[in-house]
This record gives sequence, structure tokens and C-alpha cells, in this order.
Amino acid sequence: MSSSVRVFVTGGTFDKEYNELTGTLAFQDTHLPEMLRLGRCRLEVSIRTLMLIDSLDMTDADRALIVERCRTAREPRIVITHGTDTMVETAGVLARSFPRDGDKTIVLTGAMVPYAFGSSDGLFNLGSALSFVQLLAPGVYIAMNGRYFGWDGVQKNPDTGVFEPTRSLPAAADDGPGGPPSGG
Amino acid sequence: MSSSVRVFVTGGTFDKEYNELTGTLAFQDTHLPEMLRLGRCRLEVSIRTLMLIDSLDMTDADRALIVERCRTAREPRIVITHGTDTMVETAGVLARSFPRDGDKTIVLTGAMVPYAFGSSDGLFNLGSALSFVQLLAPGVYIAMNGRYFGWDGVQKNPDTGVFEPTRSLPAAADDGPGGPPSGG
Amino acid sequence: MSSSVRVFVTGGTFDKEYNELTGTLAFQDTHLPEMLRLGRCRLEVSIRTLMLIDSLDMTDADRALIVERCRTAREPRIVITHGTDTMVETAGVLARSFPRDGDKTIVLTGAMVPYAFGSSDGLFNLGSALSFVQLLAPGVYIAMNGRYFGWDGVQKNPDTGVFEPTRSLPAAADDGPGGPPSGG
Amino acid sequence: MSSSVRVFVTGGTFDKEYNELTGTLAFQDTHLPEMLRLGRCRLEVSIRTLMLIDSLDMTDADRALIVERCRTAREPRIVITHGTDTMVETAGVLARSFPRDGDKTIVLTGAMVPYAFGSSDGLFNLGSALSFVQLLAPGVYIAMNGRYFGWDGVQKNPDTGVFEPTRSLPAAADDGPGGPPSGG
Repeated sequence: MSSSVRVFVTGGTFDKEYNELTGTLAFQDTHLPEMLRLGRCRLEVSIRTLMLIDSLDMTDADRALIVERCRTAREPRIVITHGTDTMVETAGVLARSFPRDGDKTIVLTGAMVPYAFGSSDGLFNLGSALSFVQLLAPGVYIAMNGRYFGWDGVQKNPDTGVFEPTRSLPAAADDGPGGPPSGG
Repeated sequence: MSSSVRVFVTGGTFDKEYNELTGTLAFQDTHLPEMLRLGRCRLEVSIRTLMLIDSLDMTDADRALIVERCRTAREPRIVITHGTDTMVETAGVLARSFPRDGDKTIVLTGAMVPYAFGSSDGLFNLGSALSFVQLLAPGVYIAMNGRYFGWDGVQKNPDTGVFEPTRSLPAAADDGPGGPPSGG
Repeated sequence: MSSSVRVFVTGGTFDKEYNELTGTLAFQDTHLPEMLRLGRCRLEVSIRTLMLIDSLDMTDADRALIVERCRTAREPRIVITHGTDTMVETAGVLARSFPRDGDKTIVLTGAMVPYAFGSSDGLFNLGSALSFVQLLAPGVYIAMNGRYFGWDGVQKNPDTGVFEPTRSLPAAADDGPGGPPSGG
Repeated sequence: MSSSVRVFVTGGTFDKEYNELTGTLAFQDTHLPEMLRLGRCRLEVSIRTLMLIDSLDMTDADRALIVERCRTAREPRIVITHGTDTMVETAGVLARSFPRDGDKTIVLTGAMVPYAFGSSDGLFNLGSALSFVQLLAPGVYIAMNGRYFGWDGVQKNPDTGVFEPTRSLPAAADDGPGGPPSGG
């Protein structure tokens, strides 16, 4: 039994940098290896950059590529770094291919502030996503704000930037259909 | 069913700061609230500082206090920030009171570099510990380096500073006796 | 004889922040007080924010306001934080009102990377500008990249982002017409 | 006429780092090149590490070496990074060899918080010292807290960590005997 985790990088705020010549935010390279080094992470992690784009620019073809890479990945546990704006949409697309009775646990995560900036939530979210993915049952999840959500029970609040449960009853983060394995 | 988590602060490298008048490392106040803010954490978390000490200075009385506070905490899920040098020892003391068939999940975590310094692993570890504690079955665990370990299956390697499984067989991080709830 | 320095804030990259809801760079408030605190600055400094704009958006009216504020300032030594794109242009406008045989020393400075980001040159440039302004003879100067330049002897290299002397002869940084007081 | 500056590194808080295995502060290597890169410094600077020690451990032999290196340096302008505790003492030793009517301008600077920590004053002080050294008349100075002082007009306040003039009259920072070139 392998404890290795596959990380697919797609870009998003996580990896944006300040281009000092143009004064704009842009992608240069992923910060994931540096972040894992900073976190002294000793989990067996294989990183692969699929794309480095703003999630608002993500096309159907991009999502199809992500699905395909998840399908052919040998690891049963996968973390995807992704822009927050369409993270829920991509999670929905993935869920069609990776059901709850399947054999893959996929956790999407992102950041509200680029890692390269002093005040990023990226390192916290990465530690969180890599931990959730080790314990959650097969299915597709989003890990943000220290919580995890099943793919169909979450939305990004555009006013606060916070990921929230879409349903108020039972509290999706605890025992929704995309929830954790029961302690049986 | 509550998803709230109790955090007990005991000090350790996590919370050390540079005292610019004396040129030494010392405790001033805990950084946990600031770290949760930086991580945009929306998990319901109650922080309580029990002590702010180097874990090499932790006495039996200190550990008895930690046990007592865990016992009287209403939350079933508890994270303890702790110096790394005697984290395993404190976990062992806690395990005598909080067995695997009990009703509390306790995760100890710490940092190799103070949070106040630029290159700390603290935020990564905090995100990780707060995530593991939400899913692990009752018992006492250590979360470091992106991994979790049952209290009796881990040691800190003094040469590398890395927390490692004490036993090479089955891989304690995956299915040791302090492992995750089985999916059924 | 007063050693106090007036600082006028006009915005520029110096003070840009990442707006995590829109994913764009924007102004919120000046970081100057925080930067002076970080630098443990004990120089008597009075900060006044005149505007918080990108220097590409600076109008003739904005520049007229800056000139006016410099004219009415009681302090003989003034530092202006300014976007780098039109810093030379504003220096030229100021030079019409504040000649070398006048009674005011004005130093413009800025940053290539926002202070709020981890890798900013802002603190270095601020320390530099506040030091140059204490010693330079009356006139208008630009302080960037650890060097100072008379207002009419400098240009920003658009390819490298570096401020350079416009003339190769005598080395403007040392003894150009806008140079330092000669040693008696 | 050369505008190049020689930087001699002697250690001090500037260059201390956190050793995560021992939990102590120690020297590993100087951060000066990285700091100059961060400051986008384009001044011609030559860095030479003479020693990496706490200034409380500095011996007469160490100070003799510093004097000797300043003497043989070809550059007329020298910045020395130095621990703050005995910076004034070393300045006094240097002043015996480098008088005000000599041909060398020497500026000592340091930091209250290690550069490797998030909240260091190091970058501000370095920008400041490199600027003062370009304009001050020959002699020995200390640049701290955004100000400069002649070597015999300054002391470190042990209660606040701030460098202050030793004499209250005329304000040493402006026109003390170690002051700037008079304007004409």
C-alpha cells in the first residue's frame, strides 16, 4: 500500500507572481516544490504541472486534460492546485468520472493570495489539502479555509472569498454525501 | 454534531520570537490567532494558551495540566501546539488517558522554525493538524512533515529534525494501530 | 536647526496591495508608517498622503498639487514616494520650482515590487532616500537602486527597470549638475 | 573618479540565522549579496566577509584586522556590517586610523533583527548606510535608525536598542564634528 500523493498544478492565484517590468500579475513557474520544502514535507509527493492559468481562463479542453491525467495517474490520492473562481466547476466535471464508490480520492485546493506575497494562505491550504487527501474516502472534494467539502456541497462566496456549504442542514462539512469515512 | 476544534497552546518553536534587546529567542505571545487569520481559517476553533514554554522545560506537572484540560474540554477534537523535542513524550502521557476506543481525537503539532521567521513550517503544519484532527478516529497522534503518526509509532530523528515511523513494517502512517478510520 | 524630513506619499508600486476578492493590484492605504517602524527609523519624519495612484495615471493637476505641497512644507528636506514609470517626469516639473540655489532638497523614490510582497525593494529604497535627503544640497533628485541622480541626468531603462544616468560623461551619480555638495 | 563602495562583513545580528536542529541562532553565511539583489542595488559594490561573529565576541585582533582591511582597500568609501553591541567601540578604534582629514569615509551599520527573519530592519539600514557613505566627508560614522552619527557622538541605548547622540546640544546628527560636508 502506497502513501504517495500525486499533485497536479493548474495555476491559479497560488502561483501568480508580480512581474516588476510590466507591473502586472503573471505566471512564471510553480511554487509547489518550494512550498513543500518550506513545510518540511516528507510525504511522498509527485508534482506535475498541467498548465499555469487563471481559472477564469480554463476551457473545457483544459478540464478534459485534468480528468485524463487523474485517470491515468497511478496514485489513488490526488491534490489539484486550482484558481478559486472556477474550482467548484472543475470539481463537478471531475466528479462525473470519479464517483464515491471509485478508487480515487481527489482534493482541489487553492489560495486567495499568491504564495509569493507575504500574507498568503497558500501554505496553510497546501498542508490542509495534503492531509485531507490521505484520509478521505474516494470522491472529489474541495479543501479551503481549513475545511473540506464534497464537490456538490460547496460554493465560493463572491463577497467574502470564503468557501461555504451550499446547504445549511446537516452541515455538509461533517456528514454530507461527500463526507469522510464513517468511523465504523 | 459540532465541527468545532479546541486548540491548546503550550509554546515550542512555533511561538518563539526574536527579542531584539537581548538578542535571544523568547516567548511573548502566541501567534495562533494570526496564523488562523492568515490561513483564512473558517473552521470553528477555540484557542487556549496553557503555557508558553520550550518543550525541554516541560515538567510532569505541565503534562498533567495538559491532560486535565483535554479531559475537561467539551470539544471531541483537540489540536495541541508543542515543542518538537518532547512532543512524542507528551503524546505518550496523553495516550494513557485518551485510548483508541475513547471519544477524543488529539493531534499534537509543532514547528522546526518559529512562525515569526520568514521560512517557518508552522503554517503548513497547522493546516495539516487541523485537517487530520477532523478525520482521525479517537486516539492520540502527531502531525508533522505533512504526515500523521499514532503516538506509539513515531520518533523525532535528532540528526534531521524529521518525524519518522519507529517501525519499518506496514508503514505506520498508513495503517498502524493509531491509523485512520477504515472506510466502512 | 531641524533635522525633520517631510514625506509625501503619491502611491506607485510602493503601496500597491493584492485585493484577494478581485485578484487585482490596488491601493488601500500607505505602508510608509509600517515601513518606518520596521526600519526602527528615529529620524523625525512627518508623512502626508497626497494621493494613492499609479504614476501612469498622474495628471498635470496632480503634479501641480505635489509642487504646491512642497512649496508650503515647512521642512527643507522632502522625500516623495512615487510610481517609477513617470518619476523622472514629475522630477522635471518639480525642478522648475525648486532650483539648485533654492532652499529645498527633494528626493523622489519608489519601488519595483510592492512593499506588501515578500521580495520588495521598497525598504531598501526608503532607507536610501531618507539618507540622501539629509545630505544632498538643494535641488531635485531621484534615489533608486542604491544611487542618486540629479533630476535631469536620469532615465528608467524600460527593459531592465533600472534607473540609469542619461549621460555617460563624468558619471552623473557623482558630480552631475544636480550632484552633492562639494566638500568645501 | 570611482563610485564603487567596499563592504566588509563582520557578522552581527544582520547575518544570524535560526538553526532548526539546535534551536539556536547561529551564523551560516552572509546575506549581503541577497540583500543587494533584493534592493535592486546597482551601485558598484565589492563584498568581503572578514568574519562572522557576534560583536560581543570581537577581540582586539579582530578589530586590528578590520582596520588593516580598511587601510588596504582601494575604495575610498567603505561600509562595515557589524553587531550593534560593540559597534561604537569598533568605530572608535577605526577613528584612530581614519581621521576626518583623511581620505576614507567609513560607515558602520547593523541590524536589531536578523535579516532572515520577517521583520528585520536590515534592508532599511543597508540602503541607508550605502547612501550615507556616498556623501559623507572622510571620517568614521555609524548609520542606524535612519540617521548617521560621527563615531564620537553616539551611543546605543541599552533599554531601547536605539542609537542616540551622546550630547544633547546642537543635535549631533546634523552638525557634529563628524558631520556632513558643509554646503560650500
